[in-house]
Parts: sequence; structure tokens; C-alpha cells
Amino acid sequence: MKLNKNYYAIIMAGGVGSRFWPLSKANYPKQFHDILGAGETLIERTFGRLSQKVPADHVLVLTNENYKALVKEQLPKVKDENIVLEPAMRNTAPCILLAALKIYKANPDGVMIVAPSDHWIENESAFLTDLETAFKACEADASEEKLLITLGIEPTFPHTGYGYIQYTSSDSAVKHVKAFKEKPDYATAKGFLAEGNYSWNAGIFIWSAKAILESFEKYLPEMYTLFNAGYEALNTEEEEAFIREHYEQAENISIDYGILEKSGNVGVIPATFDWSDLGAWGALYDNLEKDGDANVIVNAQVINRDSTGNLIRSEKGKVVVIDGLQDYIVVDSQEVLVIMPKSKEQDVKIMRAEVEKKFGSDLV
Amino acid sequence: MKLNKNYYAIIMAGGVGSRFWPLSKANYPKQFHDILGAGETLIERTFGRLSQKVPADHVLVLTNENYKALVKEQLPKVKDENIVLEPAMRNTAPCILLAALKIYKANPDGVMIVAPSDHWIENESAFLTDLETAFKACEADASEEKLLITLGIEPTFPHTGYGYIQYTSSDSAVKHVKAFKEKPDYATAKGFLAEGNYSWNAGIFIWSAKAILESFEKYLPEMYTLFNAGYEALNTEEEEAFIREHYEQAENISIDYGILEKSGNVGVIPATFDWSDLGAWGALYDNLEKDGDANVIVNAQVINRDSTGNLIRSEKGKVVVIDGLQDYIVVDSQEVLVIMPKSKEQDVKIMRAEVEKKFGSDLV
Repeated sequence: MKLNKNYYAIIMAGGVGSRFWPLSKANYPKQFHDILGAGETLIERTFGRLSQKVPADHVLVLTNENYKALVKEQLPKVKDENIVLEPAMRNTAPCILLAALKIYKANPDGVMIVAPSDHWIENESAFLTDLETAFKACEADASEEKLLITLGIEPTFPHTGYGYIQYTSSDSAVKHVKAFKEKPDYATAKGFLAEGNYSWNAGIFIWSAKAILESFEKYLPEMYTLFNAGYEALNTEEEEAFIREHYEQAENISIDYGILEKSGNVGVIPATFDWSDLGAWGALYDNLEKDGDANVIVNAQVINRDSTGNLIRSEKGKVVVIDGLQDYIVVDSQEVLVIMPKSKEQDVKIMRAEVEKKFGSDLV
Repeated sequence: MKLNKNYYAIIMAGGVGSRFWPLSKANYPKQFHDILGAGETLIERTFGRLSQKVPADHVLVLTNENYKALVKEQLPKVKDENIVLEPAMRNTAPCILLAALKIYKANPDGVMIVAPSDHWIENESAFLTDLETAFKACEADASEEKLLITLGIEPTFPHTGYGYIQYTSSDSAVKHVKAFKEKPDYATAKGFLAEGNYSWNAGIFIWSAKAILESFEKYLPEMYTLFNAGYEALNTEEEEAFIREHYEQAENISIDYGILEKSGNVGVIPATFDWSDLGAWGALYDNLEKDGDANVIVNAQVINRDSTGNLIRSEKGKVVVIDGLQDYIVVDSQEVLVIMPKSKEQDVKIMRAEVEKKFGSDLV
């Protein structure tokens, strides 16, 4: 299959994934693990999915110095100059601007998807269809203020952990976004679902390089000026030094808040695929196949006595015998074993902090 | 301190310890583990205790071929010729007879203690005092039918898992044993405790070599004849061949049933030390120090949230985070993790069998 030479992808791979501790660790985070026990790490799977539409040498990875070796190891097809290392944590806007400038310089007709490295998408062909729709819409767009698209996830319940995207119902594939809504409380979320024209914001964006650069110029002009000053250096040997010197001065702001909420022409494609951000251990339970006792087993060889509704994850092949456990998460790594009720999954960050304090940062 | 050159010890170390699976495994059983996290394995501790009374080169270890290397590694002071390897499982009587013949041949005035390798004794000096009392009584004994002594454990509750020893109350240190009682039902055990003159049979025996040989000659004459035929070979290079050739022919019978229950002159010294046979994981919980939440932690570094009454054991230093666990046993080894309610400790043998069947005998 011939891939469109105008298509680009940006994989966001700088996160620490602390909610998936003890598997995900600061020096080896979630996206580099085969969290699902599927034979591929999340970032490998993300790359594999995107490269069905985007030429492999058009895939950029945004991460930081600590994960460079992991990226190179797991994504050998990504070119060195396409691995952009953030010298400081500055949220999503600065690194996306930098990547857009690089792409625009390489190809002013470039259209790009920005995708998290650590999400789970069940139905890849549906995803690719939605992606193609978005790419085509961006390429065809002739608006004064150019179109920015987000893939919205159809809400399945009144989740209070996501931002919502309100759109104008219409027959067109790309709906017009009316507003971005912050994480709502439960009643508000229920209202959104009752209304029907709301998606979850999954942080998956598609736009032309030109469109996003014009948006930066308009809505984040200081940042645009800061990075555009290094335009000559981009995609050359000078790039690294330029980034190291100027990146920290960029404002710490998300692409959502800095651009999308301000733009007058944002579209959403309600996704036709199943998705999870694998936000915490419970998400793994929700998204994997259950055995006859509603247990989800990843990697382990389990003898189950009187135990239902559990998620058991171990190193490959470890034998785990459970007796009398209901609705627990058991995660066993080489150095750390966690046994906790599923209902406490949000406490993982607290546990992680406590372990770091008591037993040292090597463990987190 | 000068040790009495007539004193001998026999350490019984052939057991598999399957109730302490997954720590105890057929190729590395309980007695060779530091079950208590005390810095010494159970057999090392047993040897250390006995060798305060018995010269190190008077300590014999009865075990089987599979454990020879472990015995040599953990008890380097035990002489090669004092490691007696049973070529077949024949319960306790045959191997004790063999050891008694070896000791008698080396020293007809020898008195010996027979002790399990995998029990736990808290107060060593009290044990040594009781042992000295027993040795002295055996040496001083001038009865027609010579004295056989057992150290009886003072029952702390109506345990239905031990045999009981009924004795005649008296002021003497060594009480006359009236009868051995099989494992009783609960009501019977309660009756024993109410009467007061009952001990638990812990399988710890003291007698002179001469006394036990005369008892074998009288009560198990076939076995005595079988092994006494090899008397010349014992303690020589011929011994091993003799044992290999004749051991299997011996009757499969315990020393309790074959000798003690028949002898007319058995004494019991009610022990003044705290003891546990560490019969199952719960015994470990019972015998180790609890933290403020009544948890017992062995080897692990634990973060405890909302969890009480648990026994947590891991490899040295592993971090274990538990949340919402009440009265569980968590045992984590390299290859196997077991999480079960304390009340199910007796099911460990079933779990072990299930794991062997499903995942292979390497794991048990």
C-alpha cells in the first residue's frame, strides 16, 4: 500500500504513567510496557497503528532525554532526527509547536495527527477510517481560520475524569465544536450524556501543519515567536542546541487550553472505535477479557479458588494462587507487589509516593 | 565449655514440608529455609542449639540423597560419615535404629537425642536444661527395661493435630508415661487439658543407644535382625552399600508406634520452653512478633493500608503494598505467589498438588 507522503504523526511519549505503578516506573514508564500482555508495548502498538497510514519516516516522537534509549530500542524505524527531546516539562503546547514547525519546514503541505503513546484502541481499522476522514477534511479545508480536528470518544457513562467536547449535531462526519468543557461533576456529566452531543476529549488531534502554526501565531504569539526564531536550525544539526537553549523559556500550557479552546474552527469526529486511555489499573480490568469467574489475568498462571472480579498481573509465567479474593488488583513485579481493592485504584499514586519516601526512588 | 563425650544427637531431616509451599519445595524443603527470617535456616538453628550440649562430630543427620548437598552446605561441621541417607521412605523407626547402631558401635555408653530439624524453639536455655535432665536420667537409669524419654510439650489449647502423652503426675522431673493417645477429636482434647497430666508429642526423644537397641530387639525383632546383620559394616566404607542393599526391606513404621507405645518404661519431661512444629503458615503467624496492626512481616518491606492480622512473607527486601486485607497469608517467592485467608492454611497441600498438576513439578 502506498502511503500519502503528506501525512505525518506525532507520538507523545513523555509521560511517567504513575497510576500504573509498580509496573510503570519513572525510568521505564507505562508506554514502554506491554501493559496488556499482548506481545507488544503500548508505544510499539501505537506506532504500528499509525504507520498503516503514515510513512514510518514521517513519525515523530516527543519525549525526554530519559526515554530516548527506550524509544530507539522499541521504535527502530523512527529516525533519530524525528525523536524530539524536551529539555523541560512544559505541557503539550510547546512540543507540539516545535514538531509542527519541523513538519512544515520539511513539507508545507503536511497534515499531522497528534496521538498519545499509551492509549488502547481496540478496533484499528475503524480508527484508521476516522483518521483518513480527518486527514482528508484538513487537506480539503479552505476556511479563513483553518480547521483543527479532534477525535472525540463517545461517552459510555458519566465519567468525571475526562474533559468533554460539546458539538453541533449534524450529518457531516466532522462536527463543529461549540465548546470544551472541563472535567464535570457527576450531575453535569449525566446532563451531557442526556443531551447526546458530547464527546470525551482523548487528546487525539489532526490538523495541517499550516493550520496549527497559524493558530499558534494567533493565540500563543510569544511562544510562536520564540520557536520560529529557530526555524533555520530545525531539521539540521543545530536543532538540538536551539531547543536546549530556548525550550525552557516557553510557557507551560496545554494545547487544549492554549489553542483549541480559543480557536473558532475546531471540528470533532465522534470516534467509531473502542478506546481507553488506560488511565489506571481498573481500566485494564475493564478492557480485557474476563475468565469464567470475571477475573482478568495478565501474564500470570493462576490457580483460582473462590476468587472473582480480580485483576492479576505478574511477570510472564509466574504462578499466582489466589483464594477468597473479591474485586482486587494484584500487581507483582520483580521488586514490588501491590494487593489492593479495585475501588482503591486512585490511591496508587499515594502508595507510590509512600514507597518512594520510605524505600527510595529506585522503586518508583 | 567441655561437652560430654557420651552425648549424641540425631537430626531428622528427610521431610518435604509441603505445608510451607511455595517456600518449601520438594528439592529445597522447609528445614533448609530461613522460614522465620532470623538469619539462619531451621536446620542450622537446630544444629546450633544441639551443639551447645553435644560435640559437633557426634551429630548425625538422617535425610535422603536429594538433600545431601544441602546438609553439607548448611552444616559443614557434620562429618560425612554422620550423614545417613535413607534410600527409601520407611518412616522413623528404621533410620533411628540404624543411627542407634552406629552410635552404639562408636560408643556403647552413648546417650542420644532424636530431634526434628524443622521445629522452632524459643527459649534455648530452657531447652538445654530439659535436655541435660533427660541425658542425666538416661545415664543414671538402671532399670531392667531401660528408660526411653520424650520431651512433651505443655498443651496451650485443645489441639486436634497432635498425639498426646498421658503421664502419672509426680514430683520427679521425668514423669512415667501411662499411654500414648492418637490425635483426639476436639471434645477429647478438651478433656485431656482439663485433666492436666497430658503433653503433646513433639517427636523429641532421648535415650541411651543401649536402651533403644534393646527395645528394638524386643519390639521390632525382625528389623533389629535385618540391620544388626550389618553391624560390622557400620562406620566403615562398607556402610553405604549395606544400607542401600537392605534398607528397603525394613518395615515402614514410626518409632512411636513401633517402640514407644509398646515399651513399659517411657518417661516424659514436660518441656519448660516455648515450641512450635511450624506445621503450617499460620504457626509462623502465631510465633512471630506482630506489628501495631497485628501483621507479621517476614523479609518484606511493607506499606500497610487498612490491613490487619496478616502474615506477609517475601524474598528479602521486596516491597509489598497491601490495602484492605484482613487475616490473609501472602507468600511471595521467585516463581510463585500465594494469597489466601489464614483460615485456609490447611489447603496449601491441595493448592500445591493443583499447581504441580497444572504447571509442573518444578514448582512444588
